[in-house]
Amino acid sequence: MVVVVLPTADLRARLAARLPGHRLEVWAPGDWAPFPGPADLLVLPYMIAAPHLRALDGVPVGLVQSQTLGYDGVRDHLPAGLRYCNAVGVHEASTGELALALVLADLRGIPDAVRDATSGAWNHRRRRGLAGRRVLVVGVGGVGREIVARLEPFDVDLVRVARTARDGVHGVDELPHLLSGAEVVILAVPLGEETRGLVDAGFLAAMPDGALLVNVSRGPVVDTEALLAEVSSGRLRAALDVTDPEPLPPDHPLWTTPGVLITPHSGGDTDAMDARVDAVILEQVRRFEAGEPPANLVIG
Amino acid sequence: MVVVVLPTADLRARLAARLPGHRLEVWAPGDWAPFPGPADLLVLPYMIAAPHLRALDGVPVGLVQSQTLGYDGVRDHLPAGLRYCNAVGVHEASTGELALALVLADLRGIPDAVRDATSGAWNHRRRRGLAGRRVLVVGVGGVGREIVARLEPFDVDLVRVARTARDGVHGVDELPHLLSGAEVVILAVPLGEETRGLVDAGFLAAMPDGALLVNVSRGPVVDTEALLAEVSSGRLRAALDVTDPEPLPPDHPLWTTPGVLITPHSGGDTDAMDARVDAVILEQVRRFEAGEPPANLVIG
Repeated sequence: MVVVVLPTADLRARLAARLPGHRLEVWAPGDWAPFPGPADLLVLPYMIAAPHLRALDGVPVGLVQSQTLGYDGVRDHLPAGLRYCNAVGVHEASTGELALALVLADLRGIPDAVRDATSGAWNHRRRRGLAGRRVLVVGVGGVGREIVARLEPFDVDLVRVARTARDGVHGVDELPHLLSGAEVVILAVPLGEETRGLVDAGFLAAMPDGALLVNVSRGPVVDTEALLAEVSSGRLRAALDVTDPEPLPPDHPLWTTPGVLITPHSGGDTDAMDARVDAVILEQVRRFEAGEPPANLVIG
Repeated sequence: MVVVVLPTADLRARLAARLPGHRLEVWAPGDWAPFPGPADLLVLPYMIAAPHLRALDGVPVGLVQSQTLGYDGVRDHLPAGLRYCNAVGVHEASTGELALALVLADLRGIPDAVRDATSGAWNHRRRRGLAGRRVLVVGVGGVGREIVARLEPFDVDLVRVARTARDGVHGVDELPHLLSGAEVVILAVPLGEETRGLVDAGFLAAMPDGALLVNVSRGPVVDTEALLAEVSSGRLRAALDVTDPEPLPPDHPLWTTPGVLITPHSGGDTDAMDARVDAVILEQVRRFEAGEPPANLVIG
């Protein structure tokens, strides 16, 4: 019998029939109730802020499973001795989907159409298409791959960039040169020491006039003040699913700057998510029972 | 020497260097200036309303070339004796692009995000994803093919429908059954006797609760009143690049009905269009000189 602590009663209801003979408890960091352990596996709430992981100090659990792919900040806050797995295979496809939604919405004028609807204004005008554009995808992990797969039938001039160059992929050291021809730049990198502030004033200055920056990774990959300067002048455009700070405060100027489209970190959160989270948890339980090492152990 | 009459000075400027030795004139139906003919080829303005074609009565021209793919109404208004070619290969890809933009924008909440930006509201909530959904594409012509190609990497359950069933394609007679499982229905049919009002109250009633209707073909394929009833009740959603009437009057209730996204017939009009229009005209001139029949002659 494996003891699994789940963050919501909803998740327990979904999994109960698929994990007969195991003990499923409900608890989340910050709950007033005591930890219902000892437990073999603790599943974290979706999008828990890393500092809240300190509430796991002293909790008797063998393995912590997150529901997110990114785990920036986790190492700084996860109590020593806990092992941590990220959620691989849960959010990549839906984040790739959102990246395409943001690119197409901006190029084809969807935000203008939504605003025009309030006054019933039929403003036909030529739009930029995606076909034929040079699109830079920065990051070749799971999300980057899903974006690239979806871009392929759109007849784009695709350029892939990763930390180090490899077959068909350019290295970040080539960015200054590559950016000068990029009409769309999509960020799909994890947040870490090397990527924090990667998109700074110099990066943005290298992008050509009218280019679109799309961020579906993490807000701090982009220097917000530098981006604000470039979009405020009208030189660049931006479509952001993540921001820094996040949530973006109501009075932040990015909200109302023309040429900026903001979605509220919804890359991974679709109705396709539940089945994929369930699969991750079921696989960890299976491995636990089989005496196999956990999947996607990134800390511990 | 081929005599080509073009609708704008801009188009003449683009083509002049590529058609040396030919005579390029500028004129459009409705111009006060006399027709600068006789001419071998007359290129129509983009999106000219069919009744304006009556202005071609008595004009000495061998062939009329449109800049649109659809030619509903042309037969009713084109003066007898004129031969007419539609524009194949100009708009299909960009219309396919827009279909994806509309589907993704609706499912992933882009219109809500645009509206939330005015108040700086970070409204994270779960959205529907495209992955795994059953998507019906009605129409297997050029636009339908471009839509299908772009949908493929999105991991959808794709169902294709055409007038008559064939390998991998269902016939329209199966629609009542097929619609009941369709979460997204994309219309990509030409407007004609068989498709006018195809999407009527019965068609819409067969779609399941919450389903999305996308129209990138022609407005009158959908019964506007029947659609308005279904979207007003909140049972269905709609993303429309074409409407009936078109342009949609400023006070039309569709503009402000929740769950309705309207773009101003911008399917074909991207910056990729010019090069494709040029290619169509150059090819017709080449055929004329070579004594070959014109491409895409649909009337005459």
